[in-house]
Amino acid sequence: MTNTASNGIKTVGLAPKMDSGFYGQDIISVRQFSRENLTYIFGVADEMRAVVKRVGSTDLLKGHVLACVFYEPSTRTSSSFVAAMSRLGGSVIPINEVTYSSVTKGESLPDTIRTLESYADVLVLRHPEVGASTVAAEYARKPVINAGDGVGEHPTQALLDLYTIQSELGQIDGLHVAMVGDLRYGRTVHSLARLLTQYDVQMTFVSPEILRMPLDVMNEVKASGRSVHETYDVHEVIGDVDVLYVTRVQRERFADQAQYDSVKDYYVITAELMQTAKERMIVMHPLPRVGEISYLIDDDPRAAYFRQMENGMYIRMALLAAVLGKA
Amino acid sequence: MTNTASNGIKTVGLAPKMDSGFYGQDIISVRQFSRENLTYIFGVADEMRAVVKRVGSTDLLKGHVLACVFYEPSTRTSSSFVAAMSRLGGSVIPINEVTYSSVTKGESLPDTIRTLESYADVLVLRHPEVGASTVAAEYARKPVINAGDGVGEHPTQALLDLYTIQSELGQIDGLHVAMVGDLRYGRTVHSLARLLTQYDVQMTFVSPEILRMPLDVMNEVKASGRSVHETYDVHEVIGDVDVLYVTRVQRERFADQAQYDSVKDYYVITAELMQTAKERMIVMHPLPRVGEISYLIDDDPRAAYFRQMENGMYIRMALLAAVLGKA
Amino acid sequence: MTNTASNGIKTVGLAPKMDSGFYGQDIISVRQFSRENLTYIFGVADEMRAVVKRVGSTDLLKGHVLACVFYEPSTRTSSSFVAAMSRLGGSVIPINEVTYSSVTKGESLPDTIRTLESYADVLVLRHPEVGASTVAAEYARKPVINAGDGVGEHPTQALLDLYTIQSELGQIDGLHVAMVGDLRYGRTVHSLARLLTQYDVQMTFVSPEILRMPLDVMNEVKASGRSVHETYDVHEVIGDVDVLYVTRVQRERFADQAQYDSVKDYYVITAELMQTAKERMIVMHPLPRVGEISYLIDDDPRAAYFRQMENGMYIRMALLAAVLGKA
Repeated sequence: MTNTASNGIKTVGLAPKMDSGFYGQDIISVRQFSRENLTYIFGVADEMRAVVKRVGSTDLLKGHVLACVFYEPSTRTSSSFVAAMSRLGGSVIPINEVTYSSVTKGESLPDTIRTLESYADVLVLRHPEVGASTVAAEYARKPVINAGDGVGEHPTQALLDLYTIQSELGQIDGLHVAMVGDLRYGRTVHSLARLLTQYDVQMTFVSPEILRMPLDVMNEVKASGRSVHETYDVHEVIGDVDVLYVTRVQRERFADQAQYDSVKDYYVITAELMQTAKERMIVMHPLPRVGEISYLIDDDPRAAYFRQMENGMYIRMALLAAVLGKA
Repeated sequence: MTNTASNGIKTVGLAPKMDSGFYGQDIISVRQFSRENLTYIFGVADEMRAVVKRVGSTDLLKGHVLACVFYEPSTRTSSSFVAAMSRLGGSVIPINEVTYSSVTKGESLPDTIRTLESYADVLVLRHPEVGASTVAAEYARKPVINAGDGVGEHPTQALLDLYTIQSELGQIDGLHVAMVGDLRYGRTVHSLARLLTQYDVQMTFVSPEILRMPLDVMNEVKASGRSVHETYDVHEVIGDVDVLYVTRVQRERFADQAQYDSVKDYYVITAELMQTAKERMIVMHPLPRVGEISYLIDDDPRAAYFRQMENGMYIRMALLAAVLGKA
Repeated sequence: MTNTASNGIKTVGLAPKMDSGFYGQDIISVRQFSRENLTYIFGVADEMRAVVKRVGSTDLLKGHVLACVFYEPSTRTSSSFVAAMSRLGGSVIPINEVTYSSVTKGESLPDTIRTLESYADVLVLRHPEVGASTVAAEYARKPVINAGDGVGEHPTQALLDLYTIQSELGQIDGLHVAMVGDLRYGRTVHSLARLLTQYDVQMTFVSPEILRMPLDVMNEVKASGRSVHETYDVHEVIGDVDVLYVTRVQRERFADQAQYDSVKDYYVITAELMQTAKERMIVMHPLPRVGEISYLIDDDPRAAYFRQMENGMYIRMALLAAVLGKA
């Protein structure tokens, strides 16, 4: 869905702020969401959770079709959207093998999108290039939901992260949120930090020097007036935080293998570490994890990462219903 | 679905002409379709469009299962069938990874088909070898729809092409249809030319010498008594045609790269060229395109190729409903 | 679904015996099934068949979601489960590209399973490693159905095999069942042999020396008190058997190509051989076949292998409905 001037020429640019109802809107960036929008969509997600817990699914989107267009694989995200659409009574066209098909014949993204929107009512797009969703939304008349565009944004992840904090702790204002690990390349922490600036929170960024939060995010957080602190050591904050958001330090980020080996164990959340954490706090992770959170804390009630996954389905149900005008 | 003599021996051969109702029939070739059949199925497609525009979907095929068997990838065609079946209320078994699975263990096509038909009510088959659908239909007791068999036929594409002409221009008789580009290897133009012989049309074939329409199609068109003309130059006909059907000149067709480069720009539809076209005419393309139609004419109301894609869904809805006896 | 002690610690080990109702149980091994369980599930499968034959599908699992998690491709098995879930009115998250996605990022099976169960109501798992389903079931709170774990078990295959014998011949007690071909590596014959020990049957194992039934299966059959006989020559038993269960001798099992060539034709079921078989008997095969059963007997009413495939759908419908408490 794009803004089209009366002369038929598409207006390119940043995705617009969400309307209150979301109907017919694209979901491209967390920057579209006001605090009011967030409250609204979290309320819808709460309703979705209640429906699923009570009866498993609804017929809200019966007869509606979602084209799930994944230019790169993401089991977690695509499964979550397929489950969300199914539990809303709708159907899915799963297009997971995009790179193997017409794209390899050289078709442009706009043509692919315009073709697929002729079959579907809403599109979800995962693409390796930054800005792909913006381009798709520009050409599509149907709503486009960004499911990750390279190192760009992954707004539904950020929304489910924030929704998890709200669900687990009952509020967002007043909390101390620490983000741990790879803050430089971690798309999810950038988006979450941006969303959190709308709330009265204290943030701590815990990372090795070479993986510090990028300047633009830092500046944005600072400009919001929120309290922000940086440290190398998770021990320094563990006793005070309400939310410990852990991310993976990916081997492939390091040109030098020795450098990777030297930092990879610095940010591991162990059972010992958790003994120094507050009794009422949560550990989050976007998953997959590879050792940065010990399996030994999976049964700790503060380990919220699997509930976080489940929340992804409710948020996506809420967004799908909302952009199709059925929330 | 095959003709089986009373002695249980299958009769091999050309797919039979369609019965008026289509129920239980295979869709293998455009040669099965009389003008009466075409009128019928276009009428059903019109109804499908009306339903989708009004309410999105129906429950006509609720509880029915389509096995979508793709031995080679085709996002467009498979997505269109999945959307069609979904909007009819039915379910799909998407079998896109055929080459990775039992086929690689050496299983024969008939065994694969006989297995899959034990799960499904109707089969759609895409296969790289000419005649694969005929073989499949011969062994299957359930209806088989050919979704492209190598350089052979792709009848649902031809039907949606003809349906688009009918929908866009309100008639087929009396029109001047030009086909442009790779007419030698272009499966879609062969089938469309054959279908058009049933109507009172004038045809012009526009291609480089080495990509001229094959002799058998030429002879068939001539035998039908239709007016047919060949040219190298699209400028010669652009001012007169009602339908400009453009196809892609594929690089891989040329052994000699220089030869490809010398012709590839001869058949490009530009905004300038469109200025010399009639005001009421349509530009069609089976997509994907790679430069043979300028993006600058996408918003020209005469650019019908995205509507053509959408029509593919309605035609496939019509065919699925018809062969399952629910049209 | 796992047994969780009140202290929250999971108990690892063999899958427990099925409860009479199956509700909430995992299906991991044929060893879970008592004769009473088999009678029950075959009865449900009979009902499923009746529903499909009469009206195509039911709404029994409407609103329920199956995650179909395939770490290795298996068109036949995955299609059968997708069809089963569709005909029960439920939805499927097809996860066929597991190896391409988060698993390649190094995620553990338990994390993948715990994530996917947060979206789904039941999980079907195909995995190349023995014991994968046991691990999955241990971590999942939702029911897990083993769809094959390497050279381990494939219980739904064994159940559909036994169900086919029951359906085709009206009973299992009193029959003479011969298993032919690769009995050493053939997972299906091991499981079937184990299930058959619960019935009053006579078994004959027909294989080349290097592909004889493994000692542990032999011992288990003998310990059951069932009559068992081994031979190299299918001609020796063909005239007496009620069930001829044929398996493929896979080329890849042989280090020495010449050895493969020397045995590969010894166990081919031809029309001539079938002339010496009883009039009321059945030929079964788990498919795919590659020459070990002549196509010439496909129309012989004793050739039960395609009906066997269809039975797979009914058994899987029965199991899905049962573990979700809707049978």
